Amino acid sequence: MSALGAMQDWPLRVMRLVDHAEREHSSREVVTAWADGSITRTNWGEIAGQARRMAKALERLGIRRGDRVATLAMNHAHHLTSWYGAIGMGGILHTINPRLFADQLTYIANHAEDRILLYDKAFAPLVESMKPSWPTIEHYVCMDDGEFAAWLAGEDDDYRWVDGDEREPCALCYTSGTTGHPKGVLYEHRSTMLHTLMEVTPDVFGLTARSVVLPIVPMFHANAWGVPWAAPMTGCKLVLSADYRPQQMCELFRDEGVTHSAGVPTIWMGMIDYIERTGTSLSELKSVTIGGSAAPRAMVEWFRARGINVGHAWGMTETSPIGTCGAPPAGWEDFTDGEQLDYITRQGRIPFGVELRIVDDKDRELPRDGVATGRLQVRGPWVVKRYFKAEEDATDADGWFDTGDVAALHPDGTMQITDRSKDVIKSGGEWISSIELENAAVGCPGVAEAAAIGIVHPKWDERPLLLVVRSEGSNVTPAQIQDHLAGHVAKWWLPDAIEFVDELPHTATGKLSKKTLREQFAGYRFPDAVAMVGR
Amino acid sequence: MSALGAMQDWPLRVMRLVDHAEREHSSREVVTAWADGSITRTNWGEIAGQARRMAKALERLGIRRGDRVATLAMNHAHHLTSWYGAIGMGGILHTINPRLFADQLTYIANHAEDRILLYDKAFAPLVESMKPSWPTIEHYVCMDDGEFAAWLAGEDDDYRWVDGDEREPCALCYTSGTTGHPKGVLYEHRSTMLHTLMEVTPDVFGLTARSVVLPIVPMFHANAWGVPWAAPMTGCKLVLSADYRPQQMCELFRDEGVTHSAGVPTIWMGMIDYIERTGTSLSELKSVTIGGSAAPRAMVEWFRARGINVGHAWGMTETSPIGTCGAPPAGWEDFTDGEQLDYITRQGRIPFGVELRIVDDKDRELPRDGVATGRLQVRGPWVVKRYFKAEEDATDADGWFDTGDVAALHPDGTMQITDRSKDVIKSGGEWISSIELENAAVGCPGVAEAAAIGIVHPKWDERPLLLVVRSEGSNVTPAQIQDHLAGHVAKWWLPDAIEFVDELPHTATGKLSKKTLREQFAGYRFPDAVAMVGR
Repeated sequence: MSALGAMQDWPLRVMRLVDHAEREHSSREVVTAWADGSITRTNWGEIAGQARRMAKALERLGIRRGDRVATLAMNHAHHLTSWYGAIGMGGILHTINPRLFADQLTYIANHAEDRILLYDKAFAPLVESMKPSWPTIEHYVCMDDGEFAAWLAGEDDDYRWVDGDEREPCALCYTSGTTGHPKGVLYEHRSTMLHTLMEVTPDVFGLTARSVVLPIVPMFHANAWGVPWAAPMTGCKLVLSADYRPQQMCELFRDEGVTHSAGVPTIWMGMIDYIERTGTSLSELKSVTIGGSAAPRAMVEWFRARGINVGHAWGMTETSPIGTCGAPPAGWEDFTDGEQLDYITRQGRIPFGVELRIVDDKDRELPRDGVATGRLQVRGPWVVKRYFKAEEDATDADGWFDTGDVAALHPDGTMQITDRSKDVIKSGGEWISSIELENAAVGCPGVAEAAAIGIVHPKWDERPLLLVVRSEGSNVTPAQIQDHLAGHVAKWWLPDAIEFVDELPHTATGKLSKKTLREQFAGYRFPDAVAMVGR
Repeated sequence: MSALGAMQDWPLRVMRLVDHAEREHSSREVVTAWADGSITRTNWGEIAGQARRMAKALERLGIRRGDRVATLAMNHAHHLTSWYGAIGMGGILHTINPRLFADQLTYIANHAEDRILLYDKAFAPLVESMKPSWPTIEHYVCMDDGEFAAWLAGEDDDYRWVDGDEREPCALCYTSGTTGHPKGVLYEHRSTMLHTLMEVTPDVFGLTARSVVLPIVPMFHANAWGVPWAAPMTGCKLVLSADYRPQQMCELFRDEGVTHSAGVPTIWMGMIDYIERTGTSLSELKSVTIGGSAAPRAMVEWFRARGINVGHAWGMTETSPIGTCGAPPAGWEDFTDGEQLDYITRQGRIPFGVELRIVDDKDRELPRDGVATGRLQVRGPWVVKRYFKAEEDATDADGWFDTGDVAALHPDGTMQITDRSKDVIKSGGEWISSIELENAAVGCPGVAEAAAIGIVHPKWDERPLLLVVRSEGSNVTPAQIQDHLAGHVAKWWLPDAIEFVDELPHTATGKLSKKTLREQFAGYRFPDAVAMVGR
């Protein structure tokens, strides 16, 4: 601030979102579809009032500024209220992923030093079983409708949000990393607000006061991609669902007139399948954001054929989470249909506020030529600098955070994830994308699932081993799979061996656990490895 | 920032806009239509390179961080380059309005202590005449094509923008106030960036990378409403015109495929008139933002009939300038055509980041009932706190800035300006809107222009006097005008007298100068005032 004059001081605090929504969009609805099939309605004015009551209730329990307030809940209005209530009284909202394994749940609640847990009744058995492992948690509040209402009924809404610096933390979310302990990303008021401002812009989520948005992503998963922050900023209608089953979702889309949604390919796949079988529709849906993993081309085509815009997003817990989003670029009308599809099926382009680059093994920046692939690094105001309680920064000297992804940057501005850096197979100084190999393999008839890992090789450092789960009743042979692969990947990418397995290991969030596979196959040797050395 | 963890440090600096545009939208065009009718094209990559050259050129002239770099120029690419060049080297961009009177020009350049002036060749005579009055200006650079290119040709683009805190000032713009000396609003990097993030959202300007935006508002007028910041943030195509004549503008809209524009009603009026006479069209135009003064209902209808969305904005130099913008609210489809028109012709609704309230003479907040009118006050991160070199803040103890406007806030969230607080006529404790009286009067056949001012009145404090310029050849009488007014305003609003004048005084920016009128009619007494006292 200059001594010569100044603009106003107005810290970017998260509670301004709900204040704005209460003042300007008070009667705009927040709808919940509960797990039991019932629908309840509230609005931004009531959410704000309830959040004030909860802030008082938390203070009454002795929760203080900076304390971690944990939630173990699906998407619903009480969970939303608890976000704003916890942050409003100066607490740090810690959204716990109920799908984590017990040892991870133990670790993160203790590492976070959670003092209170708000949980869904459906998770009561889990909570009971975990209680002995959670010594820091002094209070447990079930968000069952009656119990929750009774808790807040004891308070009035005469409360002023705790104020403070915009760099203060407001929320904590642990990554379900595949190696080591989960790491906590400590979101700040400022980072959250800047991310939200970016997210509502037309080339990202493009939300308006007329939008009806339904995030098909859990609120414990990188804050439901920020939708519960973006909705009150714009005054749009927010639809929350604790139930992702296709029929229930399709009915909700129709009944509530959902215009915008966001989710992972798996969920969309189920809904598309349901729609194809039943002849129903997605009603008012205009815009879909897909992220989490790569959207199949056929899925993108399916949406486009129905006049629904598709944006492919990429991000991670460490990026709040939006890193890229695939809005159409200038000159879009001149693209052929195939070019448009190519564009959309990559992982989107870079919005203002994000800096991306790819680097090689020696940290040298690689060209944006759509060919070079390297470790993807990111900078920006909503990107992690230091993990919660970490001893040192997660960024390099120039402030870059290494995402752990391997990607190409295309001349048209899009980014394309090709692999995770620890999964990429390093063969003779070049990189083989395990993901591309797997995608090509599952396209082969008779292959249900596939995983490619690098096996130590005396000449090439690593060579690919492909592990295949056959479809039920299939007798597909390694030779048939190799033939199929040969039509889709470079010859030197072809796996040195294909082994059949009954099943592949997965992480708590349903991803292939390459780490477990690498452990299982640590001693594996290719049948002809010795022979090859002599070549 | 918490000691426990952190998101990245990433100050909101203006130069990130051009950096982003250079990286992600380098070849996206910036088009200039010059006053001589010629068209030139550059792009964001070249603008960034030229700005670096200019930063070096400014440093070579001895300009230092914090120095004021003034411009006296219409809208064109060189002016745009000078914005980013000046700010990039740490200077404070001071955009001077060439339409100001000589004594104002003298005052502001001296008050700003401008060290260098970049000016259009067309203003060379003005500059020559002003030079003796501008002792602080050491360097004059004409932005004529050849001279400008030659100046920058001496530099390379190996330059790193000056970095610093986001609360540092980046630009200075003086209000052409109607009383006292002009006041300087010192924009900060942060205020500018937050304003820009808000401006590109769908419910404000709604800009995307596919947009083609042409601001029909000068770059010296509250930074062309922020468009030159918003364009590089989104990567849209920017079309700048130094020529606002209707035919030239219409051709530019057509040739460049302009999709978004913003301007004052007067300019639109001229274009609409031209289009009606010639049968041309606005081509690709999809969205128009109108501000500066109230848009006539017929103008809004004209755009709507052509499928062009209209948003009415309100703001001022002190608000960067966007304070409100009239995007359709939730439930828009259920509005009747008349309700939609009513909504649009008010001055828009409140975007996130702006707080508005109306207060009475005792600073008590008034209800948002669409009936109460009061002094409009504003808070937010892009609202002035203290004018340049002022001794005290321009805000009250609670941080509110008094806009000098009188307004109503409607239950639907829209704001409606009814008058300027110093122009409102205070009669018997109630307020009469001078603007509404004037608008009603110019609707009377034979009235070319009208101004209403308050005249001291022994019983009612003030009563309205209406000053009328008759249309050419008109013989309209006071009684006819009173009859007309009686059909449009409350009976107690009817002026106590109507006087005919040959012309009305205007300010440098073309607004009615009520201040001059009040001086001219300071001794005026209503013909029957003495008689009325006895009533």
